[in-house]
Amino acid sequence: MSGADGLPAHARPVPPDRASRLLNHGPTVLVAAHHAGQTNAMAAAWACALDFVPPKLTVVLDKATRTRALIEASGQFTVAVPTVAQVALVTALGSLSAVDTPDKMERLQRDAGLQWQAAPGFPDQPLIGGCAAWMVCRVLPQPALQQAHDLFLAEIVQAWADERVFSNGRWHFETANPDLRTLHHVAGGHYYAIGEAVVSPRFVTSA
Amino acid sequence: MSGADGLPAHARPVPPDRASRLLNHGPTVLVAAHHAGQTNAMAAAWACALDFVPPKLTVVLDKATRTRALIEASGQFTVAVPTVAQVALVTALGSLSAVDTPDKMERLQRDAGLQWQAAPGFPDQPLIGGCAAWMVCRVLPQPALQQAHDLFLAEIVQAWADERVFSNGRWHFETANPDLRTLHHVAGGHYYAIGEAVVSPRFVTSA
Repeated sequence: MSGADGLPAHARPVPPDRASRLLNHGPTVLVAAHHAGQTNAMAAAWACALDFVPPKLTVVLDKATRTRALIEASGQFTVAVPTVAQVALVTALGSLSAVDTPDKMERLQRDAGLQWQAAPGFPDQPLIGGCAAWMVCRVLPQPALQQAHDLFLAEIVQAWADERVFSNGRWHFETANPDLRTLHHVAGGHYYAIGEAVVSPRFVTSA
Repeated sequence: MSGADGLPAHARPVPPDRASRLLNHGPTVLVAAHHAGQTNAMAAAWACALDFVPPKLTVVLDKATRTRALIEASGQFTVAVPTVAQVALVTALGSLSAVDTPDKMERLQRDAGLQWQAAPGFPDQPLIGGCAAWMVCRVLPQPALQQAHDLFLAEIVQAWADERVFSNGRWHFETANPDLRTLHHVAGGHYYAIGEAVVSPRFVTSA
């Protein structure tokens, strides 16, 4: 990786039992991987929490992606939760393919603000700067599932979040800079940002 | 089921190749099932699209839930996408258990606005009235995965959406009544509503 220089700004560790909350509200994510000198990343709308402790997730990774090949070779990957400020980068990561555009990563570093950073303890695992949260993941191999459904299961080994928008185990979109809101993909470069907080009235019933 | 009287108001069929878009943006969903005279429903934050055509999804269903037992027995279930207007119902469905409260469904019909409806062609499949979208699903059996990870794969056999908020294959939260926005769960009765539309600038790069 080029340009890796430690944990992204404002990143603070997220306790394992709170890591699933980074995905609970259904954001579109970025998936990155590194193997044998190659680094690649892609956007993924189909990622989901799978368990609380240890925290786990699922993610759908198409066979046509270079990132998937790196994940299958290394058994590891990172998931990042990008923000409204990064929408052009997310769209570029999701629409350019390194299969057709071998210099995809260089172009995105030059033209779309892609920055690689690394995390203490995981020097090979590429984190994408400027996101709202990051997870280092270890694949829980399910060869039949990966082959038939493109579905990968993974344990979240370590998580961090930008303390300006996630602290004390929860998101604070209602008070943080709107640029730090998460993106929720619709189709083809169209997204919704996460919106206002809604608190449920307590349900009261009597027999 | 009691009170079932056809498709919910404003429900229109969603073409199979657009059904995954009902889940793309990561809403919290309601899962309902019916078997041998019993109907139950629960809330699930961990549901995710899995494929485009035929449309498929994944959902995590805890072993402690009565709804899961009905799904395992019948091989079918429904997924509904609830709205901001239904937040109390979603919280009640997610916090009360039919294991501890055998009359959960009756209480929610009486005190929380739960209404059962049915769909042409699927008379046994319970749809929850007032939601923004509905899917009838058929389990793709993965016994080891269900046992080890509580993860269920399913094909979306038929989908409908409320035409006031989803039409021509996409959501229209930016113009629809705000009560029809989807809910995105944080924890314990706290949610975010889906927010404003964000359109990405086109990514331009040169070699």
